[in-house]
Amino acid sequence: MADLNSKLEIGVTTGPIRGSKKIHVGPLGVKMREIHLEPSSGEAPVRVYDTSGPYTDPDAVIDIAAGLPELRREWIRGRGDVEEVTQREVKPEDNGQLGPDRSGGVPPFPNVRRQVLRARAGANVSQMHYARRGIVTPEMEYVATRENLGREQVRGLIRDGQDWGAAIPDYVTPEWVRDEVARGRAIIPSNINHPESEPMAIGRNFLVKINANIGNSAVASDVANEVDKMVWSIRWGADTVMDLSTGRNIHDTREWIIRNSPVPIGTVPIYQALEKVGGVAEDLTWEVFRDTLIEQAEQGVDYFTIHAGVRLPYVPLAAKRVTGIVSRGGSIMAKWCLAHHKESFLYERFDEITEIMKAYDIAYSLGDGLRPGSIADANDEAQFAELYTLGELTKRAWQQDVQVMIEGPGHVPMHKIKENMDKQLAVCGEAPFYTLGPLVTDIAPGYDHITSGIGAAMIGWFGTAMLCYVTPKEHLGLPDRDDVKVGVVTYKLAAHAADLAKGHPASKVRDDALSKARFEFRWRDQFNLSLDPDTAEQYHDQTLPAEGAKTAHFCSMCGPKFCSMKISQEVREFARLQNQDSDTFVAAEEAEAGMAQMSKVYDETGRELYMGAGDRERD
Amino acid sequence: MADLNSKLEIGVTTGPIRGSKKIHVGPLGVKMREIHLEPSSGEAPVRVYDTSGPYTDPDAVIDIAAGLPELRREWIRGRGDVEEVTQREVKPEDNGQLGPDRSGGVPPFPNVRRQVLRARAGANVSQMHYARRGIVTPEMEYVATRENLGREQVRGLIRDGQDWGAAIPDYVTPEWVRDEVARGRAIIPSNINHPESEPMAIGRNFLVKINANIGNSAVASDVANEVDKMVWSIRWGADTVMDLSTGRNIHDTREWIIRNSPVPIGTVPIYQALEKVGGVAEDLTWEVFRDTLIEQAEQGVDYFTIHAGVRLPYVPLAAKRVTGIVSRGGSIMAKWCLAHHKESFLYERFDEITEIMKAYDIAYSLGDGLRPGSIADANDEAQFAELYTLGELTKRAWQQDVQVMIEGPGHVPMHKIKENMDKQLAVCGEAPFYTLGPLVTDIAPGYDHITSGIGAAMIGWFGTAMLCYVTPKEHLGLPDRDDVKVGVVTYKLAAHAADLAKGHPASKVRDDALSKARFEFRWRDQFNLSLDPDTAEQYHDQTLPAEGAKTAHFCSMCGPKFCSMKISQEVREFARLQNQDSDTFVAAEEAEAGMAQMSKVYDETGRELYMGAGDRERD
Repeated sequence: MADLNSKLEIGVTTGPIRGSKKIHVGPLGVKMREIHLEPSSGEAPVRVYDTSGPYTDPDAVIDIAAGLPELRREWIRGRGDVEEVTQREVKPEDNGQLGPDRSGGVPPFPNVRRQVLRARAGANVSQMHYARRGIVTPEMEYVATRENLGREQVRGLIRDGQDWGAAIPDYVTPEWVRDEVARGRAIIPSNINHPESEPMAIGRNFLVKINANIGNSAVASDVANEVDKMVWSIRWGADTVMDLSTGRNIHDTREWIIRNSPVPIGTVPIYQALEKVGGVAEDLTWEVFRDTLIEQAEQGVDYFTIHAGVRLPYVPLAAKRVTGIVSRGGSIMAKWCLAHHKESFLYERFDEITEIMKAYDIAYSLGDGLRPGSIADANDEAQFAELYTLGELTKRAWQQDVQVMIEGPGHVPMHKIKENMDKQLAVCGEAPFYTLGPLVTDIAPGYDHITSGIGAAMIGWFGTAMLCYVTPKEHLGLPDRDDVKVGVVTYKLAAHAADLAKGHPASKVRDDALSKARFEFRWRDQFNLSLDPDTAEQYHDQTLPAEGAKTAHFCSMCGPKFCSMKISQEVREFARLQNQDSDTFVAAEEAEAGMAQMSKVYDETGRELYMGAGDRERD
Repeated sequence: MADLNSKLEIGVTTGPIRGSKKIHVGPLGVKMREIHLEPSSGEAPVRVYDTSGPYTDPDAVIDIAAGLPELRREWIRGRGDVEEVTQREVKPEDNGQLGPDRSGGVPPFPNVRRQVLRARAGANVSQMHYARRGIVTPEMEYVATRENLGREQVRGLIRDGQDWGAAIPDYVTPEWVRDEVARGRAIIPSNINHPESEPMAIGRNFLVKINANIGNSAVASDVANEVDKMVWSIRWGADTVMDLSTGRNIHDTREWIIRNSPVPIGTVPIYQALEKVGGVAEDLTWEVFRDTLIEQAEQGVDYFTIHAGVRLPYVPLAAKRVTGIVSRGGSIMAKWCLAHHKESFLYERFDEITEIMKAYDIAYSLGDGLRPGSIADANDEAQFAELYTLGELTKRAWQQDVQVMIEGPGHVPMHKIKENMDKQLAVCGEAPFYTLGPLVTDIAPGYDHITSGIGAAMIGWFGTAMLCYVTPKEHLGLPDRDDVKVGVVTYKLAAHAADLAKGHPASKVRDDALSKARFEFRWRDQFNLSLDPDTAEQYHDQTLPAEGAKTAHFCSMCGPKFCSMKISQEVREFARLQNQDSDTFVAAEEAEAGMAQMSKVYDETGRELYMGAGDRERD
């Protein structure tokens, strides 16, 4: 790893993830990582899904002030349905500079585009539109290659899982991706003004994805922090990033983020609209909101959270709740509805919003403004009333071939999670579900990445397509870089656990490779195959720091005197003598020799390390 | 908190847990904690289950070298079925001092008992034996009071949960506890030689419990660390502690731990037996093992893990596994069986072991020596073959009225967890299940408290009675004090999530109190009601350190300009005007005044704190 500074002092972490190598697969050069194992193991390299973009590619030149290469540029232009228009002029209020004080701004992105793309009059550039006309786009091809990973090598093996009615294929083809997008069961967020993005799909029949939230503060230097957090979060596996900036400098911060992001970027446009009217919800107008949509569309935002389901008649339903309305977007719209005693303009103007979305291929993330903020409020009338409206809006968006996903809760005890998934599938026509956790208890602030990771793994298993991460600071304060990493890794493991339980064909390849490495005491392979090799190695080194211990055929838990590996080898020998199957037989003498060598290493690393207890499994 | 040193330099953390007060309830003085909320809130104090013993009682005098007061002394003696006998003499091999080198020992516990208790000839002192004869012991009374907590205040409310066939009462009576123990559905581990323990129950119809593992190392100073870890783990909520010491000084370390432990202590006696024969599994004999059982019984161990289900014919079943046998106890017995080509002496001598158990009231924790050590090996033939034998042994133990719980996996993907619970219930006659996690994926070493916390919450919901914690160091190294705390709090939240989902009558009281405090910006109440108030407050202070921020009616996520509380209050006002229900109406003017005050506090704490993003919920 190295810290690379642009001219503007924006530093991001670059360099390969420990133990893995960037590869480019197929004619489109789909980016993946490959983890090479110890040659002596005779094990094939393990291919893993990679969200980290060029930052982990030692051959890539990173220049934050220039932005990333435009992978999709020719694909987009080659379709012949876009035109170049002059970008809407940036206004002072776009960056929250309403009063005379214009200090503290962030530097504008140097390499900003003057000309941006828009669908030609009458055209619809959404992936769904192409899909429904039978067109397989390069984006769909990219996704197909990206999703397959180890499926080739496990072809023909019996699938093991409970998929709750999903339709996960043994092998992903571009045509199958097209079909899923056409049916609305998957989306490929891909604004034509974000050609830097590497196509990815969100859908119940695809690998479960995760989102990381970032967002700027009002102090200028923080644009560097936010770009760094974006790069840091995708390094550890964030599939999309939401820029939830509020306050000032929203426009410029977003430009820096999008131009440097290889993953789709989502936003909540109502935040910026609210800033433009001085923070007074009742002063929001359709015109301000519409202008904000176009501003962000031209910058390249890939999906918009739109809280169009918070309708006037539902607002009073939140009155009896323990925690009222906890969604910021939902609260803004509730306040607007109450102040004007009128139906939400997001709901009333929904088809006009959709018109805008299809001209850039922005996907809807229909916001759950009335999601529960506590166990007490889970699955209540307000929440489900809104969900029914989101189902109605899904169908309206699909009439214009605009891609849709649906946001979900929040705080839900375990026994009420499945009802959320089942209702969403039924009401929203299998549009992808995108949930925040849910947290399965309210009593552990400081550990809400875990309370929510439990709910996330479960709802992911039941069919949720993307899981929005929660960091340890949730409810308490602002996450720092470490919190972002813990949140991402926690959600990555939850998403993977969901893939495993659903029986995704090749999801078990990595678990098996790691377990085999563990059993054979290939420590480095174990570290490299893990979601966070740096932490795994660091924890190991706290107990057995010597370099020899990395190749020691025992661990700190049992020491060399007693070793389950040796006994298991004896078990295999016994089985062999009984003429039973033994697929990895190790000769007893060989095992003895190995153990003698282990004991030597052990002596060298210090006998006081022989002890264990506590960390090992229970007994 | 204060660090209190005994004469022997053993320091443990004492003093109240932040924001709560020790209370003593009912005629038996059952220890609980009460969290008092801000007087202005008008909220009743919240009673919480307390495992921390006298260490968090400012009125208690702690002397580690003397041990804890003997709460149960008169109860045990009053039953008239025990006799005093001279304690078995401590032999050098009890502490692993086999060779000429006797250095590095730990100091023996100064206040050791010379006379210990044993059932009188022909007597059976197990709680199950009393229960089956219709006797309600003080231990059962203690448990009944302890389990009720807030049930009185929620009596009459409709229960909400999915209990998968459990039989959780609205209110716990001593007679009901007796009945559960008599039927074998719950155990109260309570060795008559551990009178310091505060009675607790493990059973599917009781609150879900958690266990923390500790264990000594071979260096002398570590006895202090282990006592400290025991006290530290019960401070954060460990219901029982297993002493998994290996190597030398096992006897003396255990004595220090038991004499200072208010929670039941479990061990795996085969570990010490193995040390006595120099670590050579095949040299183990029934005589050495039997002598070890008596040694530990006289010290006061409350439950023994006995791997009597690892039978000779099952051993070859592990040959085809990815990770073979990962249980240390299981491996030891497998090796013994193979070396002698004989059936396990634990299985053959099971009734004799039971004879010993009933003379001290030690509970069985029937070990799952063939549990899976990887996703690949979950729910396989070896695992379930052993489970059937554990079911057979359960019934044999019950014939002598000896209490039993059953250990479970391990590593299991989500879709295979419920099968474990269902099979265990069916095969083992509803004896309490005690699982390790299970981990729902293998690919996150360094985060296995989370991968296993997911499985633990789920299997707890399905009916597991006690969850054995896993720390972040699992598979990698030795957990330190911080790891122990993270492991305990993670499992505490998983156990609580399980209680919530099962619909335990009063489990939601704490969630609701915390959520209400959160919504009303009672920051201190939110911290104090959480499982780890210290961490919650510390995280909050990283963003808003000023003392004024503790009473600020906004948080760092939205700042005062936009506040979902204010809007929710307006929603309530709106509802009131529409003559709808509003149970906590706040006048609009009052809200305005409150907001003005908030803004003032906000200005004082620094406007640069207005920003948010990332930590707040998604939008």
